[in-house]
Amino acid sequence: MKPVNIGLLGLGTVGGGTVKVLKRNADEITRRAGREIHIGVVAARDLNRSRICDTAGIRLTTDPYEVVTDPGVDIVVELIGGLEPAKDLVMRALDAGKHVVTANKMLIALHGNEIFAKASEKGRMVAFEAAVAGGIPIIKALREGLSGNKVEWLAGIINGTCNFILTEMREKGRDFRDVLKEAQALGYAESDPTFDVEGIDAAHKLTILASIAFGIPLQFDRVWTEGISSVTSLDVAYAETLGYRIKLLGIARRAEKGIELRVHPTLIPERRLIANVNGVMNAVLVKGDAVGPTLFYGAGAGAEPTASSVVADIIDVVRTLTSDPENRVPHLAFQPEAISDIPILPIEDIETAYYLRLSAEDRPGVLADVTRILADHNISIEAIIQKEPPNGESHLPVIMLTQKVQERKLNDAIREIEALPVIGGPVKRIRLETLG
Amino acid sequence: MKPVNIGLLGLGTVGGGTVKVLKRNADEITRRAGREIHIGVVAARDLNRSRICDTAGIRLTTDPYEVVTDPGVDIVVELIGGLEPAKDLVMRALDAGKHVVTANKMLIALHGNEIFAKASEKGRMVAFEAAVAGGIPIIKALREGLSGNKVEWLAGIINGTCNFILTEMREKGRDFRDVLKEAQALGYAESDPTFDVEGIDAAHKLTILASIAFGIPLQFDRVWTEGISSVTSLDVAYAETLGYRIKLLGIARRAEKGIELRVHPTLIPERRLIANVNGVMNAVLVKGDAVGPTLFYGAGAGAEPTASSVVADIIDVVRTLTSDPENRVPHLAFQPEAISDIPILPIEDIETAYYLRLSAEDRPGVLADVTRILADHNISIEAIIQKEPPNGESHLPVIMLTQKVQERKLNDAIREIEALPVIGGPVKRIRLETLG
Repeated sequence: MKPVNIGLLGLGTVGGGTVKVLKRNADEITRRAGREIHIGVVAARDLNRSRICDTAGIRLTTDPYEVVTDPGVDIVVELIGGLEPAKDLVMRALDAGKHVVTANKMLIALHGNEIFAKASEKGRMVAFEAAVAGGIPIIKALREGLSGNKVEWLAGIINGTCNFILTEMREKGRDFRDVLKEAQALGYAESDPTFDVEGIDAAHKLTILASIAFGIPLQFDRVWTEGISSVTSLDVAYAETLGYRIKLLGIARRAEKGIELRVHPTLIPERRLIANVNGVMNAVLVKGDAVGPTLFYGAGAGAEPTASSVVADIIDVVRTLTSDPENRVPHLAFQPEAISDIPILPIEDIETAYYLRLSAEDRPGVLADVTRILADHNISIEAIIQKEPPNGESHLPVIMLTQKVQERKLNDAIREIEALPVIGGPVKRIRLETLG
Repeated sequence: MKPVNIGLLGLGTVGGGTVKVLKRNADEITRRAGREIHIGVVAARDLNRSRICDTAGIRLTTDPYEVVTDPGVDIVVELIGGLEPAKDLVMRALDAGKHVVTANKMLIALHGNEIFAKASEKGRMVAFEAAVAGGIPIIKALREGLSGNKVEWLAGIINGTCNFILTEMREKGRDFRDVLKEAQALGYAESDPTFDVEGIDAAHKLTILASIAFGIPLQFDRVWTEGISSVTSLDVAYAETLGYRIKLLGIARRAEKGIELRVHPTLIPERRLIANVNGVMNAVLVKGDAVGPTLFYGAGAGAEPTASSVVADIIDVVRTLTSDPENRVPHLAFQPEAISDIPILPIEDIETAYYLRLSAEDRPGVLADVTRILADHNISIEAIIQKEPPNGESHLPVIMLTQKVQERKLNDAIREIEALPVIGGPVKRIRLETLG
């Protein structure tokens, strides 16, 4: 089957990330989509930007209108951001019969109603997963995964810049202005940070989430929007004293007389999972009447996390173009003929760290014997603690954490340790994963 | 358009929940699916079970074969669980040209390869979101939302019974046997708890997740499976001393020479979000090469959370049967003609709790004046703390948390407080949400 041809608008951070992911995972993506995805043409304002990624085999142009009217392009991917010329390009792409994938939250929040009407008229898809919360598939979750629910409310940490600033203020007692400067230096905040710190970016995203959750039109101008520039390190500290953390939340709630739609700094109890979402990470908490509370967490920005959503949208469109509807998504995600026979490893071949608990006689040299055996098997120790022996027992519990090692090697070492006369009973072993 | 007709197999906890959600949210669901969903017939072993939910307008039968061969049924929803007759019923439903939705993890883990082959042959859909992690749309996230990624590994808390037991052991220092008995009394564990506590249920779910993540066949018999019955409260406490929590994890990892597929108790650093998933809740952490770490959290079992996924699958099928492929999922989740004009509330109409910080002269009676004003406006106070005045200042900071109140009322009260001569400068106000 003929590859699907992508025309890309914009070769900034996200554009470059999208090219990288499509190229690096081409094999995996073809196995999932059932068809090759080929980047035919990329429009970039400055062709020197093409050095951001490998553009071999891709036609480059400085004229985005060349891309949206190219008869060979099936899907236009809009990653230039801002309102114009993005809007005009998207409308022209739809007029030319292209499907559109976009990461442009402002465009969707402000002009989505018009764009979707045009798409319906033309029988074309406009996908925008990347417009909200970067790599978190929250649009898909709300639109499809939770579609049986009446959504009661949702609350999201949907601006990574603000979450980074608030996290630093809390963890280090620093001031807003001070952390903002660092965020700018790190590239987490723009040189004009207004959109992020005054909550406007979060309000764009909340507009989109609320519309999908409640079935209401996109109405950005109705969102109450307060940023974090007035939050002081003092307030952050007092909140913590009382068991709360301050987060910039986008909140949409179905109240008795209407919908609440608001972005503002918010105290939330520190025991909530979402209160522990730190740094630039994003999370959206959705309360459905059937499912109860659900939370979706991940990177809210950055080249490849955002590209993850852009590429997922491209695959969604390709699957629709390629299969009969019943086979749009293969049961096991990959096309049946593309299932791999890569082997499952026996447990002795896995590598992980371990918690070991053993019962040792309380006398000198015992620890030396045990650690010697581990060293002989090239097993590094991360921590050791000895506990008092339980009442009336002559053996004391020794707990060790190892570094990563192959289970076979560990088993060999454990057998030797258990054979030591000073060790009582079997060694207790629990695997340890840092999940980092 | 003619309603889609559902035939339901099984009227236990999940079956009853599914009927309830479909009926309660019928309007919302029709607005999303573009078509009415009607439950035509339900098969239950014991027709007295029908009292679990309102079955008005539904034909009841004790013969499930009547359902799968009923020419009026479009979608068969299999919620009886176990291998037989569930497998035979699903195969016959496919033979009869029905689409199938199932919550049966054991059936999919053990016979999915065969069932999916039959479905492909017949051009029918088999949907199974509810088979893994209850209400969390993790199948959709892996199969579609993260489809641009090469999945590096995933790790899930996918058995609520075990997570409840381990949480109780940690929080209260209780023993495994003791908590298990309570879990059985609460209905969180079966009278024969082997499937849950020995990790078999988690292994069924891991089999499915791994297959979708890596594009490998379902191979339950290759999963290394260890349960939690050997975890002692001593180990839980020692792990905590070292900064770790013990969770039963299902882990699938792409290693150099193959795939690791294992269920076992695991120490994980307590600072990880997933380490803070407590009680019967589930969570799946997925590490993709582009998106980085993502986490999906929610209820892993129970009548309505599981029904949430069953109904989402039904809507998925109905959307495919109803629309041309390009319009399968409406841009804003709801059909364009079903968008509601429910109003967005002005900020003065919202209700929330508040953090207030004011600067008060350090002399008797000031607090009394402030709290009197709040009481006059019917605003209840949740907490008050006074801090030492900063060096050389005559005013001291007073921090208050209010209970929920309408913002208009609070604004009135704040205006009065600010007019008190003993109060210096404006009252700082930050909204507070418990997100409970």
